[in-house]
Amino acid sequence: MNIVDSYKEDFLVYLNSKISIKEPVNLYEPMHYILQIGGKRLRPILTIMTCDLFNGNAKEAYDAALAVEVFHNFTLIHDDIMDSAPIRRGKETVHFKWDLNTGILSGDAMMILALRCFESYEPVVFKKLVQLFNKTGLEVCEGQQLDIDFETRNDVSIEEYIKMITYKTSVLVAAAMKMGAIIANASKNDTESIYNFGLNLGIAFQLQDDYLDTFGNSATFGKQIGGDIIENKKTFLYLKCLQICNSTDKERLLDFYNSNKTGTTKVEEVTKLFKKNNIAAIIINEIAVYTNKAFDVLNNLDLTEDKKRILKNFGYSLMKRTI
Amino acid sequence: MNIVDSYKEDFLVYLNSKISIKEPVNLYEPMHYILQIGGKRLRPILTIMTCDLFNGNAKEAYDAALAVEVFHNFTLIHDDIMDSAPIRRGKETVHFKWDLNTGILSGDAMMILALRCFESYEPVVFKKLVQLFNKTGLEVCEGQQLDIDFETRNDVSIEEYIKMITYKTSVLVAAAMKMGAIIANASKNDTESIYNFGLNLGIAFQLQDDYLDTFGNSATFGKQIGGDIIENKKTFLYLKCLQICNSTDKERLLDFYNSNKTGTTKVEEVTKLFKKNNIAAIIINEIAVYTNKAFDVLNNLDLTEDKKRILKNFGYSLMKRTI
Repeated sequence: MNIVDSYKEDFLVYLNSKISIKEPVNLYEPMHYILQIGGKRLRPILTIMTCDLFNGNAKEAYDAALAVEVFHNFTLIHDDIMDSAPIRRGKETVHFKWDLNTGILSGDAMMILALRCFESYEPVVFKKLVQLFNKTGLEVCEGQQLDIDFETRNDVSIEEYIKMITYKTSVLVAAAMKMGAIIANASKNDTESIYNFGLNLGIAFQLQDDYLDTFGNSATFGKQIGGDIIENKKTFLYLKCLQICNSTDKERLLDFYNSNKTGTTKVEEVTKLFKKNNIAAIIINEIAVYTNKAFDVLNNLDLTEDKKRILKNFGYSLMKRTI
Repeated sequence: MNIVDSYKEDFLVYLNSKISIKEPVNLYEPMHYILQIGGKRLRPILTIMTCDLFNGNAKEAYDAALAVEVFHNFTLIHDDIMDSAPIRRGKETVHFKWDLNTGILSGDAMMILALRCFESYEPVVFKKLVQLFNKTGLEVCEGQQLDIDFETRNDVSIEEYIKMITYKTSVLVAAAMKMGAIIANASKNDTESIYNFGLNLGIAFQLQDDYLDTFGNSATFGKQIGGDIIENKKTFLYLKCLQICNSTDKERLLDFYNSNKTGTTKVEEVTKLFKKNNIAAIIINEIAVYTNKAFDVLNNLDLTEDKKRILKNFGYSLMKRTI
């Protein structure tokens, strides 16, 4: 088993030991459900791995890792409501399986439960972790708001899009790693640098998600291929295509996204436009750019080459993922 | 100006200095709106007053008071969604004025903003306050879930009802006071006792709310009189009436609450049943019971008689309130 798999396995054992269905059942059952239906566990793995790499006691990172994972799953419940999404990880979403109110309330309670995970840390570390958690949580909300705002805007720039995914996705990946460094009592420079590593890796991760949503394999991806196109999501693929394509293609693309056309024809036609304009290659290059930005940060870190290699390999594995 | 009014005025100045509309506007505007449309500011007043009574620096309590008020308003936004309520404090509710997604997301962000208010405290006090906040916040969610569960249950006992309002309402009143005591560095006994004072006062406060909802004056109450009856809320009035009335009245009451009858006739008829069974007098007595339980706790407190009188007067004013 490679080291990442072993972090994941240890984390899952800890997660299962910590979650149980309490009274009132209707509040706790949905939390248990969403935490159990899987997921890559990317963020908690990063917290534990970072703590370990900086010579901290990996076990001491479990509670922060759990906080990050519980918070992430809270955002999924509320995001799925806002997106009216019926399916997540191949299973029914919480608000779909139960109802709207259950989704709202169990999400709220999960956010508080995430915070409670930090209570095992002594006050100084506790405050550092909770401050980072608060800052990050608010940025995630701001990112989600930008995402919603973009739905009704036709002038979103790629720069704004990168800002949105940075807030909505990357800051939590970055914070997950920084928490591991804080718990390991790493130097200020290392703590800040690992945050920047995570931030760039998180952007690469989300761009990879955009890529897979259109060009992935439905057998491994777990979500419907073309989902972003169906929902008129202004992803990097769409914005880049608009930016570089000719006026005929632009008109067609705008037409697809501003009308309520649905079904496989739309997905096929838009994908054709993306292919014609070489967008897959462009986004793959962009993913490499952000992954390399992350790798550049490694030069600032006070870590052995072996440890830097572990972080690099993790970055490469994200770039090559199909799920 | 009495001392409570002066706490309130100082708090409002502080609140206004702290809230501003930032980007993204669609996220922050609803928070600003709900914090500005009024409210009794009961909880923050209690935090500041308690800190002052225990010889703390009242100004140091402002951030905790703000945290409690922001959290309370977050719960109102999400509760109003769950109740499909169009009006709050005589104004449109957030999800009604904007939309569902805005209500969910700005509520989420408000919960995090509430937490950020504690960041001005040094680590040991910060941890105490955040732990109390987390415990309380989770109980509030549990109380809300019990309230939802009760909607579809016909066997709710008065004991269960008191537990529900304790969680949904009283724990936050109690925590608001305890935070003031923590900031003032009051003794453990005083800190625990003031929590119990607040807990009993909070129950009395909610029972008074039940009373006013049916027997209040619509000119002063700010909510629609009979709203609880229209929504088939199993309040103390309803549960007590069911418990003591004869079988004919019981059948009629159950019939009103289990059918989808609406309109003024239903409110009038149910109110008549309550009056016939003397429920107003019974709940007024129950409010006095919990207020006196709170006053009994004052005996355990290391405070001068003058200061105890301030707390008693505050309790009396809640009992006599019409809003």
